[in-house]
Amino acid sequence: MRIVRFSDGDNPRYGALDESSENIVALRNDPLFAPVEPSGQIFELEDVRLLSPVIPRSKVVGVGKNYADHAREMGGEAPDHPILFLKPNTSVIGPDDPIVLPPWSQEVHHEAELAVVIKTLAKDVPVDRVGDVILGYTCANDVSARDAQRADGQWTRAKGFDTSCPLGPWIEVGPDLDVTDLRVTSSVNGELRQSDTTAHMITPVRELVSYISRVFTLLPGDVIITGTPAGVGPIVAGDRVDISVSGIGTLSNPVVAG
Amino acid sequence: MRIVRFSDGDNPRYGALDESSENIVALRNDPLFAPVEPSGQIFELEDVRLLSPVIPRSKVVGVGKNYADHAREMGGEAPDHPILFLKPNTSVIGPDDPIVLPPWSQEVHHEAELAVVIKTLAKDVPVDRVGDVILGYTCANDVSARDAQRADGQWTRAKGFDTSCPLGPWIEVGPDLDVTDLRVTSSVNGELRQSDTTAHMITPVRELVSYISRVFTLLPGDVIITGTPAGVGPIVAGDRVDISVSGIGTLSNPVVAG
Repeated sequence: MRIVRFSDGDNPRYGALDESSENIVALRNDPLFAPVEPSGQIFELEDVRLLSPVIPRSKVVGVGKNYADHAREMGGEAPDHPILFLKPNTSVIGPDDPIVLPPWSQEVHHEAELAVVIKTLAKDVPVDRVGDVILGYTCANDVSARDAQRADGQWTRAKGFDTSCPLGPWIEVGPDLDVTDLRVTSSVNGELRQSDTTAHMITPVRELVSYISRVFTLLPGDVIITGTPAGVGPIVAGDRVDISVSGIGTLSNPVVAG
Repeated sequence: MRIVRFSDGDNPRYGALDESSENIVALRNDPLFAPVEPSGQIFELEDVRLLSPVIPRSKVVGVGKNYADHAREMGGEAPDHPILFLKPNTSVIGPDDPIVLPPWSQEVHHEAELAVVIKTLAKDVPVDRVGDVILGYTCANDVSARDAQRADGQWTRAKGFDTSCPLGPWIEVGPDLDVTDLRVTSSVNGELRQSDTTAHMITPVRELVSYISRVFTLLPGDVIITGTPAGVGPIVAGDRVDISVSGIGTLSNPVVAG
C-alpha cells in the first residue's frame, strides 16, 4: 500500500493510493495515529497536490558518509560507526515544493537518499525487531549547503535550513519490504548525477534504525534518511532535481533563489 | 509573570506563578497557543510537580562556544560566527527529572545556559524586532557526552540523547527583559562549577535569535540555548546538578545510570 498526504485545495488529507488505477482512497485520519478507515471519497492522483507524506513530530535523523564512494568524494574515509545529524521538521517539504536556496550559501548540493518512516515509539530496538517500528519507506533529498558545512564544521545550518528536506512522493508501506538492494538515483534537469544501490551502504537500514534508537527515542512519523551515494553536485535556481528509489517512486522538486 | 507547566497527578496543566505567594493560578490552555485565561483553580507550588515549561513542537537550537573562556577550555578559539546544533524535543526533561547517563558514554558533562523561548512563528527577524518573537526565558542544562562529541565530530549524538536537555523551572515571561548581564551558574552536589555573566557572550541573545531565524523558521515553543561559560565538568550517577540564571530561577536534576 502507498500512503499519500495531499491537498484537495483545503486542509491536508491522507489517502491510500492504488498503484494500477492511480486512484486515491481518502482516509478519515492520519494513518500514523489512527486505524486506516476509508472516508468513502475517491480522488484521482492527477487532480490533487501531493504533500510531504509525513511531517515529523520530532525529527529527521540523518547519517553521514554511509556509502564508501561518497565518503571518498568528500575527502575522507568512511567512519567506523554511523555519524548522526538532525534536520528539523521545519526543513521538510513535499513533492514539487521549491527548494529555496539560502542567500548565505553559494554552493548547495543535492543528495539522493532512501528514507525510513517510523511507525511507533521506539527506543533501544534490537536489530531483529526493527521491522516492528517501521511504517515504510520514501525518497529524500538531503539538500546540503556545502560551503556552510565546511565553514561551521557542524552540519546543522548546512543541512537544516528551510526546504532542505524534500520527502515523498508517498510512503511505500511495508516494514518487511526488502530494501537491501534498491537503486538510489538523482538527476538534475534529466541528467543522471547519482546512481548506486543500497547494497553498498556501510551500515544497512536495520542496523541504522537500531543504532539510532539507542541514542534517541523515535516517535511515530520520525524519519531516518540513510545516507547518499557518490555523485553529489551543485543545484542552482531554475534546476529541477529528481530523486528516485527503485520500487518506491520519484520525488521531484524545482530549485529557486532565496 | 512566570509560566509553569505542571502535573497535579493527571494531565499536564499550565499556570501563572505568583512569586510572592508561591500560588499557581491554573490556566485553561497552553499560553503559547491561546490567550491567558485563568481556570479559577489555585494550586500551591509545593503541592505540584513542575514539568518542562515547554516541549518544543520543532526544535531546541544550541550555539557552540559562545563564551570565549569556554572555547579555550575546549581547546579552540571562539568561532567568528555562531556554530549551531540541534537537540530534538525528545531530549527535553523538566525540573527534578533524572538525567539518564547513556550506556555508550563514560564522560558526560553539565553545561549551564540561558534559554530563550520563542513565542511566534519567526523567520528572518531583524535584530531590533527580536523582542516581538520572544515569550521569555528559562534555564537549560546542555548535557553533553564529551567522548561521543570527540568520536563523532558532529555533536548530534553527544548533545541529543534522551534526557540531555533539562529545561525549567518556569518561563520568566518578558520579551524585553534585560538579559545582557545575568549570572549563569552550575553547581554539582552544591559545589559551584560554572559562574559567568551573559555579558561575556560572544554573540548576544538578540543577535543570536536573529541569526538563527535566518537559517530556520522558528515555531512557537521552539527554544534557543545560548551557550555555556567555562567550568564544564563531569557528572556521574548519584550527583545532583543545579543550573541557575539570576532573575530567572534554579533548575535542579538528579543524575542516574542508564
